[in-house]
Amino acid sequence: MYLSLSWRLIAARHFPCEGEELKRIGILKTVAFEERKFDGFLIANETNLLYFAGFPGTSCLLIPKKGESTIYVYGVNYEQARAEGEGLVVELVKRDEDLMAKIAEQVKSFGIGKLAFDVLNLENYRKITKALGRKTKLRAQNKLVWRLRKVKDEQELGLMREAAKMTSRGMETACEVIKPGVREYEVAAEMEYSMRRSGSWGTAFDSIVASGIRSAFPHGGCTDRKIRKGDLVVVDIGATDHYYRSDMTRTVTAGKPSAKQMKIYEHVRLAQEKAFQAVKLGARARDVDSASRKVIEEAGYSEYFVHGLGHGVGLEVHEAPTLNPESKDRLMFRNVVTIEPGIYIPGFGGIRIEDTVIVGKRKPEKLTKGSYTLETEP
Amino acid sequence: MYLSLSWRLIAARHFPCEGEELKRIGILKTVAFEERKFDGFLIANETNLLYFAGFPGTSCLLIPKKGESTIYVYGVNYEQARAEGEGLVVELVKRDEDLMAKIAEQVKSFGIGKLAFDVLNLENYRKITKALGRKTKLRAQNKLVWRLRKVKDEQELGLMREAAKMTSRGMETACEVIKPGVREYEVAAEMEYSMRRSGSWGTAFDSIVASGIRSAFPHGGCTDRKIRKGDLVVVDIGATDHYYRSDMTRTVTAGKPSAKQMKIYEHVRLAQEKAFQAVKLGARARDVDSASRKVIEEAGYSEYFVHGLGHGVGLEVHEAPTLNPESKDRLMFRNVVTIEPGIYIPGFGGIRIEDTVIVGKRKPEKLTKGSYTLETEP
Repeated sequence: MYLSLSWRLIAARHFPCEGEELKRIGILKTVAFEERKFDGFLIANETNLLYFAGFPGTSCLLIPKKGESTIYVYGVNYEQARAEGEGLVVELVKRDEDLMAKIAEQVKSFGIGKLAFDVLNLENYRKITKALGRKTKLRAQNKLVWRLRKVKDEQELGLMREAAKMTSRGMETACEVIKPGVREYEVAAEMEYSMRRSGSWGTAFDSIVASGIRSAFPHGGCTDRKIRKGDLVVVDIGATDHYYRSDMTRTVTAGKPSAKQMKIYEHVRLAQEKAFQAVKLGARARDVDSASRKVIEEAGYSEYFVHGLGHGVGLEVHEAPTLNPESKDRLMFRNVVTIEPGIYIPGFGGIRIEDTVIVGKRKPEKLTKGSYTLETEP
Repeated sequence: MYLSLSWRLIAARHFPCEGEELKRIGILKTVAFEERKFDGFLIANETNLLYFAGFPGTSCLLIPKKGESTIYVYGVNYEQARAEGEGLVVELVKRDEDLMAKIAEQVKSFGIGKLAFDVLNLENYRKITKALGRKTKLRAQNKLVWRLRKVKDEQELGLMREAAKMTSRGMETACEVIKPGVREYEVAAEMEYSMRRSGSWGTAFDSIVASGIRSAFPHGGCTDRKIRKGDLVVVDIGATDHYYRSDMTRTVTAGKPSAKQMKIYEHVRLAQEKAFQAVKLGARARDVDSASRKVIEEAGYSEYFVHGLGHGVGLEVHEAPTLNPESKDRLMFRNVVTIEPGIYIPGFGGIRIEDTVIVGKRKPEKLTKGSYTLETEP
């Protein structure tokens, strides 16, 4: 039966990733089995599992070259996995079973001789190595997974656009609420409420509302400090949609900014603008960082820009690629990254401006949208 | 100068763990160096770092038997570490430095011959082993850290009592809001707002508001589903205070419950009561689980109680000790654990009741407080 557009949108909202996970597994198979000659892939990292299975609560995913992909699930998540794990064999793990030993048995029965894995902790690595014996070679291949995860598909981009919209709305609320006398966590309360009401699945990370001299701590969190007149307030927040995250920062003052605050703000704003102009398909991530860093260096604040320019965003708030002076990444079509220069002066305060963008063919698509003004009250 | 009580409380709110981390490091030293004959301990797990350093953003902590404990921090967190890392040497890690190599150098200069560590991933384990060479023995000793972390000190208990109070307030709000026609995420919005307004630092985990047949998924999350008349709604939430978490579940119906819903609710409620009675100093965790499980078994629902009875809570929402049929833990004075029996019937719905308690000398102290009634509207 024909589904009208609006109904399809509703369906997409409920089952955003229908079928997409199986496509992702298909791509991984091509890359790992045809290019790299593995004949099995074990996914054990929680976020990678979410990426390939489409829902949380799976403990491992075994993808054989020949045979059906199997997810391993404990009883507490079993019914949900059966309901949502379309196209995957669901294997129940009993509490008294050893997961690594169970997987090793399956690896043997699939006849896998060269098994790739994403990430294993030392304990599990030792267990599975022992259980597999010498017949199966085990190799860490997490970079292969990142090759996939850092290039977003249309469905992922759709969710990230939604998450960014909700984030932008939350930022508007925060800027309305910030006034002398209001506590940092009160700003967080109003802003998170606003994001939730617009449909956010939660917060992408612990919200930062860092005011006064605390604004000089890039990861300053959010306390019960009362915002004072003239304070710089760094607000760094993110909404989520179906596990996809967003990331945005604005810095404002409670009341009129000082001349020094305005001057530094202008450097950061210009540094961000220069970075946007450098975000191009195939650009070296370090060159984008440097386009931005140069502005801050020339203004004489290089020692106060204490972090990289940005990072990838997706299911995690910090993921590949990385934009900093040491990065070896090149920007690819459909990477989603943050651009967030900042200047942090101990004892004075900090200013950061951040947006999340999609790397496009010609120019980046800015997902988070908000004004670039330091002053909240005219 | 004398500080009045109220001022000390405010100070405590800002610096809740002043000095406590150094005490914790002292206890670890005693256990690891005197009992176990190590002469160094490397802490690399993020939450263990928070436990011993008292603030987030440190990348490693090296505790030598002879010499000063050192935290390793990247530039982005350096100023905050210097401001908050009292009693610890703060070592700046440059972006182009290899952290494991840098630590290995320090291990050598401390003359450490037998180094314990908590958790290392395979990559870091290989790096540090190589950098250390044969002179230093490296042994995983995460259980030692858990021996400390699972027994809470007074300051931790204070924060967890606060977090539980805010959680209980959030639950009240949720139960007021749940009505036919309201969406799951709208309930989450109001409830999280209420927790934030009472001072919560965020949510202890992604809030669960699972209604209708979704309530049969223990980890059902929270969607835009509209709650219908007669639905079971499982609400599982937690507030946080200074990184300490809380955990609480109530199940209610939107409107009048059915006879079957009431009957099953009563089994779960009784199962929880029996568990409380079994929570005693020195009790085997599996026996507490079994006191509760027996009630559900006798009611004929054993196959629908698909998870363990509970788990420890603290800086993480799931930590030691574990209360399930396979657990080897014994309850100790000042363990903080959840008691959360549940019955989940696919296609019908689920009921779970959960509280967080402190194991006391005679009887447990219930931290989360709320009514035990299935019906929201009289």
